[in-house]
Amino acid sequence: MNCIFCKIIAGDIPSSKIYEDDELIAFNDIRPIAPVHFLIVPKQHIESLVDCDAGQQALLGKMLLLAPELARQQGLNGFRTMINTGREGGQEVFHLHVHVFGGGQTLPKT
Amino acid sequence: MNCIFCKIIAGDIPSSKIYEDDELIAFNDIRPIAPVHFLIVPKQHIESLVDCDAGQQALLGKMLLLAPELARQQGLNGFRTMINTGREGGQEVFHLHVHVFGGGQTLPKT
Repeated sequence: MNCIFCKIIAGDIPSSKIYEDDELIAFNDIRPIAPVHFLIVPKQHIESLVDCDAGQQALLGKMLLLAPELARQQGLNGFRTMINTGREGGQEVFHLHVHVFGGGQTLPKT
Repeated sequence: MNCIFCKIIAGDIPSSKIYEDDELIAFNDIRPIAPVHFLIVPKQHIESLVDCDAGQQALLGKMLLLAPELARQQGLNGFRTMINTGREGGQEVFHLHVHVFGGGQTLPKT
């Protein structure tokens, strides 16, 4: 398996980890676009959101519920959560992940 | 209740609706930032992601699972899903919603 996130999860590549449980891991993005920018990643290798079905519904909900908890711990009052799906959707690592970022004034207005 | 999304859900304000079931509604954003840009909104009035707990886990998962289904129907090969939480996170309407957008080359790289 040549997946960088799987290697991070396995501990073969170091990361700036901020959270871990039996299903999820969270670590800081190595190329942050905001003062706070971390990723929430399932330990299960799922390529992207299009590969999810009802079997992942609870996991996806858990990923979103974790975001405000970690954002608060990182000192954010407001934050964005974003999932990029597919190359045309800006996805670069094909292991499902939620970007959580905030703390800046330069975020795109949406 | 002076919530624009609750009024859309009630049918009191027109919208360009693309999906509806007993828990969720989806409609095109009135100020699109990409060629395709719609919102997935729970019918239940929840202010934002910070107001969710385990009781909303399944609902949040369902919102994310709906995104690729509707994106495909809208002709997207790739797409972004984004939730803005809190004023500092860019949230403008305080009724939880997932932005889904794609189809352009002008999306911020993330």
